[in-house]
Amino acid sequence: MTVSKERLEAFEAALRASFPEGLALFTDAETLAPYARDESDLGEFPAQLLVRAANTAQVSRVLALATELEVPVTPVGARSGKSGGSLAVQGGVVLSLEAMNRIVEVNADDLLMVVQPGVLTAQVDEAAARLGLFYPPDPNSAGYCTMGGNVAENAGGPRALKYGVTRDYVIGLEWVLPTGEVLRVGRRTGKGVAGYDLVALFVGSEGTLGVATEITVKLIPRPRVVKTALIPFRNVADAARALTSVLTSGVWPRTLELLDEVALQAVAGRGLPVPAEAGAVVIAELDGNYEEGVLSELAMLVDQCASWGSLEAVVAQDEAQRERLWAVRKEVSPALRALAGKKISEDIVVPRSKVPEAIERFKAAGAKAGLTVATYGHAGDGNLHSNVLYASKADWPRVEVVLAELMAITVDLGGTITGEHGVGLAKKRFLPLEQPLALRELQRRLKVFFDPSVTLNPGKIWD
Amino acid sequence: MTVSKERLEAFEAALRASFPEGLALFTDAETLAPYARDESDLGEFPAQLLVRAANTAQVSRVLALATELEVPVTPVGARSGKSGGSLAVQGGVVLSLEAMNRIVEVNADDLLMVVQPGVLTAQVDEAAARLGLFYPPDPNSAGYCTMGGNVAENAGGPRALKYGVTRDYVIGLEWVLPTGEVLRVGRRTGKGVAGYDLVALFVGSEGTLGVATEITVKLIPRPRVVKTALIPFRNVADAARALTSVLTSGVWPRTLELLDEVALQAVAGRGLPVPAEAGAVVIAELDGNYEEGVLSELAMLVDQCASWGSLEAVVAQDEAQRERLWAVRKEVSPALRALAGKKISEDIVVPRSKVPEAIERFKAAGAKAGLTVATYGHAGDGNLHSNVLYASKADWPRVEVVLAELMAITVDLGGTITGEHGVGLAKKRFLPLEQPLALRELQRRLKVFFDPSVTLNPGKIWD
Repeated sequence: MTVSKERLEAFEAALRASFPEGLALFTDAETLAPYARDESDLGEFPAQLLVRAANTAQVSRVLALATELEVPVTPVGARSGKSGGSLAVQGGVVLSLEAMNRIVEVNADDLLMVVQPGVLTAQVDEAAARLGLFYPPDPNSAGYCTMGGNVAENAGGPRALKYGVTRDYVIGLEWVLPTGEVLRVGRRTGKGVAGYDLVALFVGSEGTLGVATEITVKLIPRPRVVKTALIPFRNVADAARALTSVLTSGVWPRTLELLDEVALQAVAGRGLPVPAEAGAVVIAELDGNYEEGVLSELAMLVDQCASWGSLEAVVAQDEAQRERLWAVRKEVSPALRALAGKKISEDIVVPRSKVPEAIERFKAAGAKAGLTVATYGHAGDGNLHSNVLYASKADWPRVEVVLAELMAITVDLGGTITGEHGVGLAKKRFLPLEQPLALRELQRRLKVFFDPSVTLNPGKIWD
Repeated sequence: MTVSKERLEAFEAALRASFPEGLALFTDAETLAPYARDESDLGEFPAQLLVRAANTAQVSRVLALATELEVPVTPVGARSGKSGGSLAVQGGVVLSLEAMNRIVEVNADDLLMVVQPGVLTAQVDEAAARLGLFYPPDPNSAGYCTMGGNVAENAGGPRALKYGVTRDYVIGLEWVLPTGEVLRVGRRTGKGVAGYDLVALFVGSEGTLGVATEITVKLIPRPRVVKTALIPFRNVADAARALTSVLTSGVWPRTLELLDEVALQAVAGRGLPVPAEAGAVVIAELDGNYEEGVLSELAMLVDQCASWGSLEAVVAQDEAQRERLWAVRKEVSPALRALAGKKISEDIVVPRSKVPEAIERFKAAGAKAGLTVATYGHAGDGNLHSNVLYASKADWPRVEVVLAELMAITVDLGGTITGEHGVGLAKKRFLPLEQPLALRELQRRLKVFFDPSVTLNPGKIWD
């Protein structure tokens, strides 16, 4: 799968010749080593050459040369992806955008921000907050993932329930095509419909259609009041049914997170105020500009949950308590891994009304294979991070059986195999469950339309 | 530009042979006559054959035959578009979707609705409202435009300010490709990132990439409280500056509509409660679930406007007063036409902070040519419907000069030539102002990717 030494040398020579002032190009094993992995646990995929791009011209030249010399290029940000999107599965060149990390413009009057791809997601919302504005997307990794990666994967997070995902905020891009051509697409305005929405096509294309070197996001007014409640239930089925009914009651929380009994057990002793009989919790968060209103909505939500058998809810009394709740929520994923030794985390979505059935069937599928399936995630969106826990490599064949069953159940329930992590390498084999050949073929041809030599992030989404 | 009689006859014969049970196919001038026009005032473009499709199979066959026999096909809904998107500029076949007008599914638990393209936009929100849910997009024509047209044009409306446009609600489509192939794209879930976002690419493609035969939209909880205020200003410049500052103050109205002095004059005597010295009004509407909260926000907004010199605001005291305000707002467009005899309405968007400068420069451009430019619209979004008023055809050369100047000013201010009406036929000649050749060429190639024979809605957006 690796590229011949001669071809790589030709690539390196041509690239160096284009930038006589020098560029951050590395071929030594030590510098390249960390770029062989991401957060997907899919293994090691070493590249042969790393470029840390400093500007758009360098990105353009790397892509143009890759197309010309047929060298695979894999763009990477923080390598925090869960689906293997930034793994160099064919070796070749890794193009890191991490050094293009400047906030270019914060424009409060126009409610927008322009950032380079290496800016961290949390930095965007922090810069917005200083002006009373809000950038809602909040992937769990917001503190260390980059905007380039968020755009590539169309990142979500808990607040997507009310505020939508990355695509809902990206309004403009500087987009380097696989041929090296640099386009500016989209707008700086509140609306705009001139031509096709190439921005929306690019967001979520997992680095297969080009590289974003500048990203314009819209900002919205920041709600001044946020209230968070922890609502325990005796079991996850009651909790899931309560969630479905909350949204149709007219309350619109910004998050409705769910943790099942295994997830709860994994974070036991970390300060979540839950009674011993709790077999699931919901973390509900509401926001607005008027405290009494937000509290009254939260009370309605808690009442609604009580009618589905919830135990006594705890409302965070101050920001410190609120932050503690969310800190524990963020710890669920590593804590589950610690619980069992190993785990594989899924990212499926089912229609909201199917959440109870999905969780039940997932658990049954695990039990049949003698494995535990833990579920947590953005249940208000129907987006469940179901985790198959296992102890050692020897369990892997059974894990694979359970995974395949989880995907089949998801699609059977009218759901999708990925809600926010992407197809990448991890879900490629499951995509045919959800999308028929004709639809996949159309998209594969679209990939070739943009990337005729199929050298940009090859082997992702499509074979 | 018309298709030869022989080719049309071959098309008709093949189509009839495919549906021996019969289909709604017309070639008589009387039935075809109304299909030659839309609301764009761009003139008459008679087609030669009309098919009123009853189902997806008929749509598929019409498109497949059109591709095979190279007959132009123009899809039409209610013909309420403003950019000429449904005009059969090359004659040939008009494919009407108006008879496919069934609401297929309303699913409160999953917060979604599935509709055929001929369903009226207002019907979608009415069906949602019966379940306490909300479909926010509200083009002025909601009472008579169709969802198919809304999807094609990515329709907006006043509430886009807080709730976004059609694209933000369409999550799934049955999409008939120009070749006749039928695809199901998108999802029924709250989130989903499997493959490219073809749904987002389709929405706003102005009927050039295919025909939607089924549309899945997401619904959101319906706010229980809506409050509306009419805020007069001495002049439009003050009003525009006030709007810019409102949004950065943390208040998030669902509409911020603006009427300048000409628009006000056009609807004088229709019951808008404005003092004599008013030279502009803002219609601000806020919503939420908690009355005190909404009223407190509205008070903040009114205070903010007062600091920019507004006159005394009037808050609608009941639903009847609220409806009256909006009824007058909806009458602005025809009233402006009545004022001058003729008018051409534009649909530009500038970055929010540039609204005052845009309005001023538009008026100056009109004055230079001896014509009045009236501006109203969704100013909170920067989306201005600037209208050039004129008396007779003899004025047209001057009108064209002013129009070209409006577009040039818009692009100069970092704006876009169309916010919600589309490029269609009306804005085609201005697109090069905003998008360079390379970007237009890429999109034109994308059109050909989907429609190799370039027979679907030819002559729109691209030449």
